[in-house]
Order: sequence, then structure tokens, then C-alpha cells
Amino acid sequence: MLETVDLDLELDRAAYDKVFRPLRDRLALLQREVFEAGIPVVVVFEGWDAAGKGDCIEKLVGRIDPRGYEVHVIGSPTEDEVLRPYLWRFWRRIPARGDMGIFDHSWYRRVLSERVESDVPRRVWQRSFDEISQFERMLADDGTLIVKFWLHISRAEQRRRLERMEQSDYESFRVTARDWKAHRKYRKYLEAAEEMLERTSTPWAAWTVVAATDRRYVRVKVFETLAEAMQRALDARSAPAARREASPKKGPPRRRAAAPALARTVLDESDLSKKLAPREYEQELDRWQKRLRELEFQCYERRVPVIVVYEGWDAAGKGGNIRRVIGGMDPRGYSVIPISAPKGADAAHHYLWRFWNSIPKAGHIAIFDRSWYGRVLVERVEGLCAEDAWRRAYHEINEFERSLHHAGAVLVKLWLHISKASQLRRFRERERTASKRYKITEDDWRNRARWEDYRLAVHDMITQTSTSYAPWTVVEAEDKNWARVRGARVLAEAMAERLR
Amino acid sequence: MLETVDLDLELDRAAYDKVFRPLRDRLALLQREVFEAGIPVVVVFEGWDAAGKGDCIEKLVGRIDPRGYEVHVIGSPTEDEVLRPYLWRFWRRIPARGDMGIFDHSWYRRVLSERVESDVPRRVWQRSFDEISQFERMLADDGTLIVKFWLHISRAEQRRRLERMEQSDYESFRVTARDWKAHRKYRKYLEAAEEMLERTSTPWAAWTVVAATDRRYVRVKVFETLAEAMQRALDARSAPAARREASPKKGPPRRRAAAPALARTVLDESDLSKKLAPREYEQELDRWQKRLRELEFQCYERRVPVIVVYEGWDAAGKGGNIRRVIGGMDPRGYSVIPISAPKGADAAHHYLWRFWNSIPKAGHIAIFDRSWYGRVLVERVEGLCAEDAWRRAYHEINEFERSLHHAGAVLVKLWLHISKASQLRRFRERERTASKRYKITEDDWRNRARWEDYRLAVHDMITQTSTSYAPWTVVEAEDKNWARVRGARVLAEAMAERLR
Repeated sequence: MLETVDLDLELDRAAYDKVFRPLRDRLALLQREVFEAGIPVVVVFEGWDAAGKGDCIEKLVGRIDPRGYEVHVIGSPTEDEVLRPYLWRFWRRIPARGDMGIFDHSWYRRVLSERVESDVPRRVWQRSFDEISQFERMLADDGTLIVKFWLHISRAEQRRRLERMEQSDYESFRVTARDWKAHRKYRKYLEAAEEMLERTSTPWAAWTVVAATDRRYVRVKVFETLAEAMQRALDARSAPAARREASPKKGPPRRRAAAPALARTVLDESDLSKKLAPREYEQELDRWQKRLRELEFQCYERRVPVIVVYEGWDAAGKGGNIRRVIGGMDPRGYSVIPISAPKGADAAHHYLWRFWNSIPKAGHIAIFDRSWYGRVLVERVEGLCAEDAWRRAYHEINEFERSLHHAGAVLVKLWLHISKASQLRRFRERERTASKRYKITEDDWRNRARWEDYRLAVHDMITQTSTSYAPWTVVEAEDKNWARVRGARVLAEAMAERLR
Repeated sequence: MLETVDLDLELDRAAYDKVFRPLRDRLALLQREVFEAGIPVVVVFEGWDAAGKGDCIEKLVGRIDPRGYEVHVIGSPTEDEVLRPYLWRFWRRIPARGDMGIFDHSWYRRVLSERVESDVPRRVWQRSFDEISQFERMLADDGTLIVKFWLHISRAEQRRRLERMEQSDYESFRVTARDWKAHRKYRKYLEAAEEMLERTSTPWAAWTVVAATDRRYVRVKVFETLAEAMQRALDARSAPAARREASPKKGPPRRRAAAPALARTVLDESDLSKKLAPREYEQELDRWQKRLRELEFQCYERRVPVIVVYEGWDAAGKGGNIRRVIGGMDPRGYSVIPISAPKGADAAHHYLWRFWNSIPKAGHIAIFDRSWYGRVLVERVEGLCAEDAWRRAYHEINEFERSLHHAGAVLVKLWLHISKASQLRRFRERERTASKRYKITEDDWRNRARWEDYRLAVHDMITQTSTSYAPWTVVEAEDKNWARVRGARVLAEAMAERLR
């Protein structure tokens, strides 16, 4: 998930000054309400050394009622702690009803530093994923709100910060040999953090990854996330509890109370000017199509199942892209599965049911033209399923894809990205062209009107479901040639990687 | 858990005739209601070959609307199934909303026969526990009711049945070499079944273990469990959904609609006539106290934490028993922790918090005079916590104890059992004896009036939380001498076993 983090996110002083103070006041107010409602709150800060956890915690407690929180700095276990079960020292520190427990490092130590530094055997830290999930689940079931932050900076940024601290009279004492040692193991820690995020981001205790290059950005993002989570917990407590809806009726779309202050998404990182000239396009496409045919055959021989997901904006060119990708393949080896709104038996089952039904045999390729991600895209934006349900879906989808991965599948997920302006041009063109007019419907215009909502939904989807075993690729699709070659290439490379 | 199953449970024809027909009618009615409510129902039958799964399923479907159910017999995977992820064939078979899917064998194949017969590597079946839990959780979160039965018979009984079938003209074809091969591996299957029950009995998909020696008993038990579960699912759907109560108010105790038809519990298996003559008592006690002192020291040296739980009827003699057990020990090595109703900080935290706080250091012994089991005893019976909460607690407690086990702890859990008549005698005696009068309070009389409710609660507690790593021992406590020696001995043996 971490490779999707946009580390350049920042907030200038003017924007910061405008949002931060009201946010802090709101948080203070929420804390009082949470206190009165008797909801225990656990806030976990994990992340790189020097990423700014301390600053964030300082700002956080600067404004809330000191009787209502406690900060726990978790270092190496004491002798007393070593002699007890791992979770002992954390259970002891859980907040009482209405209190807030703020953890600077936490029970994740075991799967981060203790794992990387080989302080415990593999068997032990592997088992901890379950123990930790169970622990958090028990607290959540008991009504605890759990909010977890991973403060993320690049290796270079970490080095800069450590060096700067070393040169400071006031901070140099804080940089130890241990910090530098950990810095040199950045890659190993990154790997551990990735696995931690994948395995412990649950519906009841989700991680929020925060790009931590800019301190102002971090503060606002952390405060905002926490305030939103507290508000949700309060709503859930006071509103007539939402019944679990097995088949939610189509209702008015739920809109967020306010657009988040930070509107930059993972999509903004892609360079939409990328293009391929016709001749180059033909050469490249031909090359990758041939390669795909070889790989298709090798996957067949080696019994490797391949699953490709196409998602993207309306008119981004999914259909044409798929046609080019399969252009060179043997049709006996693949199938293209178009997905529209569920009807009949599909609607009468769990939403994953129809996708499980379409899982290819080992050795075959299934290309989904839209997919299970509808749950967190259209169903979320259009209010077709309860908020509970789509929030839970990120975890469910990660587990689903993990099962496919365990069964040996190659998973490739492509988001075809175009600009809003470009979409309009394409819609207009479709309307003008008789042979394409059928492609443009009222739904398309309605979706377009919700562009902003979709943008956020896409951001959440990509950041929360891009895993080591099933990463997302944002394909710049402003130029169709570029996008087609890119799609073919990403798929080919993933297949080749798996066969290696 | 399986060692707590009373395989002698049976129902005579008269009792059976009286309850079975109404139960079947009730089930048929419930099925219609569930259908109308759109609740998908999954019923899983696992258990020994020849334990009577087929008979049960036949009876079950004999009365319900054939449009509403489907029976899935799960054997070896087909070629098509082998080529897909393990869960594929089960996902395909999940029932639609309102339908009932009945599984004769199921996804548990992997952790039973495929495990024992080494059809898959250890890594794969170990991972399946998680995959299975996730699968069931997704269905449950989507509103599916999941009811799982393990039909249990002894090795001898299985042999008898296989032999009888072989001699029958109509059934001999059903007994294969494979069945006999599996029979010979009864021990290995038992071990696999134990681990399966421990790891996959979750609040959202609990196992019901059914003593299957007597067919009539099985039918009634299965029908009754299923009817109760369906009723609960319907209630949850129609009632204004119970909000998660972080701090439930003390309310009127929830009583079951009807006492279950089968009132025999695990407690009824103990032989309350057991006793020790004074002289023998003194010799034995002396012997075990000396042994415990040695073991205490060895555990200290080897840094083994020991946790002892005393539960039992009021006036069963817990206090006196504990005094004798620690009689020979070095007081620096143990502590006795008396538990009463939570107040103050204890009440303001998760119910497990105060027990975590009291976990002994490695090398030390903690003896709990009453314990976390209050959650599923007094809190359940007196309605001090929501039904949701105590039902969830079995799983939570098993996970809690698993954490202790992983940390190397010896876990000994004793239920001190006396008869109702004997309790009355002891109460009266306490009232007559000035020095003991303080021991008897109104609470004791109130609890006594709820004897039947407690009996069921104790049964559920023992059957659902007796695990391989933390088994329960029912100590016959009608004779205090017997009970004291027994308590000391069980503890000593568990410690010695761990040190071996």
C-alpha cells in the first residue's frame, strides 16, 4: 500500500492557518462528547523514526482535556514486561470508558522492530498478527474506537531529518546509533510495514497512512481523520442503530458532511500527457501482444491462473484496451467477463458470489471489465449499500484476493485514468457519432456529475486495496495508444514475474 | 473440547415422540419465516463416518419446503475444482437470501481429512483456519445464519456401526476400505477435530458438538439448536436492533423462552459419591503438597507462569480448597486473587482488563478465586451483560487463554461441583455457625434459586472453553477431603507435564 502514498503532499501556511484552528476546536469538542458518551478511544501512532509522531501527539494533546487522555510511549519492554505475555503491557494500558489512550509506538512493535531486528523468532511474530487482530477486535466489540496512523516518509527524507537533528543543539541527543542502524534497514522495515498494513487493516481498526513529509499536512490529516472517526462513533452510538441490511434498498446517496480539506488523491500523481505516436504504438503493441501470447501459453503449461481487473472512468477506453490486450492471445485461454449491476441470482447472494463463480481455472486468464470494486465505487457513491458494508469491503476484498494469491494466481488491477475535461470531449464525440451513440447513457452523465465523489472513492480504493500480492496500476489513458500498450505491458510483466 | 462430550446421552422413544414432532413443525414454520425475511442459512454437518449425518439431513429436509433448501454432499474435489482456489466450490454453493444450504461435509475437509491424509502440506491447511474464518465472517456480516454441527461418536461405537453396516444387505456397499483406514486413524482425526473446533468456533459461526451415540438424541439436539438459532436470527432482524452496549445497565435477567428439552449436562457425569477417609486424606494431601512445593520451585527456575482458575457452586468449598493447595508452597511464589463484582476502574474497562492486570510473571503462580468466567456465569444468568456480549465471550476467553498458552503458561481450571441438596445443607450449617455466618448472604440464596440457569451456563462454559491448552476439570466436591486432594493433584500433574 505504501507505494501509493504521495509523499509530496503539503499544505502552505495560509491554507493550514485557515483549517487547523477550527479543526482543533472541533476535536476538543468531540473529545468532550466522546467522554460523556463513555466511548474509549485508542489512537496509535506508528511510522518511521523522525517522521513526526512526537510533534503530532504534542499538538493533539495540546488542546484536549488533560483528564481525558494518557500518552503511552512504548519502548523496549521492562524486565517485568518480558516476563509476561506479549499483550500484557498493552492490555494494562487500554483506556477506560470515555478516556483516550494515545500510543507512541504500540503493540505493532513485535511485527516491526522486533521482527526486523530478529528479537523474536519468525513463528512468534507471524502469530502476532492474529493476536493483535483479536486484541483490537475485542476492544472494538466492547465499544472502543480505534484509530491507527502510519506516518510515512521516504528513506532520503529520513536521512535528511536525522542529519538535521544531529546538527541541532537541542535535538542531537535524540539521534542514536540505533536510529542510524534502523535507517540503513529502511527496505526491511518497509517490507515489514507493508505486511503489517495488509494484515491488520481491519474494518474495526483501520490504518490511515499519512504522507509525513510536510508537518502541516500531517497535523491536519491526523486531526481530520480522528475527528471524523470520533464523529462516526458518536453517530453510531446515538442514532437508532442501523440494522444490518442484507439487501439494502436503493436510497438517497449518502454524502459526506463536508469535503475533506485535502483533496489531492493518488490519481493526481499520474502524468496524463503521456502518449505514443502511431508508428511507435504499432510496433510496441505488436511486441507486447506477441509476448502475451507466449506468456499465455506458459501460464497454461504451468497452470498459473491469471486475473485481470479493469476499472476506470466512463469513456476511459476500457473496452478498446481489453480488445488490444487480448488481440494476440489464443481465445481458448482467456475469457472476458463484463460486469454490470447485479440482477437475479447475483443480487440474491453475497456480492462476491458472482465473482467467485467466474474465477478462472488454473492456467486460464479471466479479464474483468469492471469487477468486485463496484462495491467501493458505484455502490458507495450511489448509496446502493450501507456505509458499514462498503467500509467493510476493503478488508473483504483484500482477503478475497489473498485467497486467489494463495491459490497461485497472478493479479493485475488497472485503473484507466483520464481528466474530467477529456471525458466530456469523449462523451460529446460519442453523441455525435451514430455508431457510438449507444455507448453513452444517462448513467454516464449522472456519474460525471459525481466526479468528485468518485475521485475520493477511487483514492480510498487504491490506497486501501493495493497490496503486495495484488497491486493497483494507474494507467494514464488520455492517449489511448499509450494506455493500450501500457495495459498489455503491465500484464505481461506481472505474468513473466510470476513464471520466473 | 471433545473429551467433555457425554456420549451416553440418549432419549427414549416416549420422550422422543413427545418432543420431535412439535420441533419439526416449529422448524418448518421457522424456515418459512426465514425465507420471507430473506435470511440465508448455512447448515454444516461434520463428524465421524457412520455418526449419522445422513439420517439427520434426511429428517431435516423431510419436513421443510423443498424449494427452500439444497443439500450439498462434499466429496473429493473434481478436476475443475482442483484447478481453482480452495474456497471456490464452496462460494459457488452459498445459499441465496432466504434459502438454506445444507452441507454434508464442507470446507472443513481441508483441516480434517486432507490434513490427516496428508493431501496438502501443513502450511496450507494451517492457513486454511484463517481463510475459513474469513469466509464465514464475510457471510455472517452479510446476514447469513451459520450453524455447524460436529456429530461425535467413540472409536468403539464407530467400529460397531461399520461392522453392522457391512453385514447389512442394503448398506454394505457404503463401507469402503477408505472408511476402515480412517477408522484406524481415529486418534489423528480426533486431534484434528479438536484443533478445528478450537480455532473455528467463532461468535458468528459457532460449532455445536452433538453426542451421536443415540439417533433420537441427535435429531432432537440438532433440530432444537437449529430452531433456536433461526429464532435468534429472526429476532435480531425484526426487533429494533440492539445497540452495542458499552456499559449495559443492570436489567431484568433474560430467560430463555423455554428450557431445552435435554437437560443433562457435563456436570451429571461426575460421581459425587467420591470421598476420602481422614487418614488417607492426610497422607495424600501431605504428599501432593510436598510435590507442589517442588514443582513451584522448578517452575520458578524454568520461568513457567502458572494460572489456576477456581470456579464452582456457592459453598462448594473453593476457599478451603485453595488454602490446602497452597498449604505447602512458598508464599513468595504465588498469589491468590479473589474476584468479586467489578467496581470503579475495573468496571470502566473491558471485562478482561483486570485479569490481564493480574497475570503472573513468568515463574510465578496466580490462583484466581473466581475469574473471567464470571462473564458467562453470573453476568449471563443475572442479565448483567447483553446476550451478544456473553455469547461472544466464549471465543474471547479462548483467545485470551491461547495468548497465555503461547506465552508458556500452565492453565488449570477447576469447577468444584456439589449437589443442590448438599448446597442447602451447607447453607443451613453456615447460618447455624456463628463463625461462618458472614459467609452466607442473600446473594447466595438468590443464586441458588437460579440453580437450573447456572447449570446450563456451566455446561456451556465447560463445553465451549475446555481446550487442549486450557482444559476444565470438574472436581467432585461433595466430600471436601476428596476435592482438596484432587485439586492439588490436578495442578501438580499439569505443572509436571509442562516441565517434562
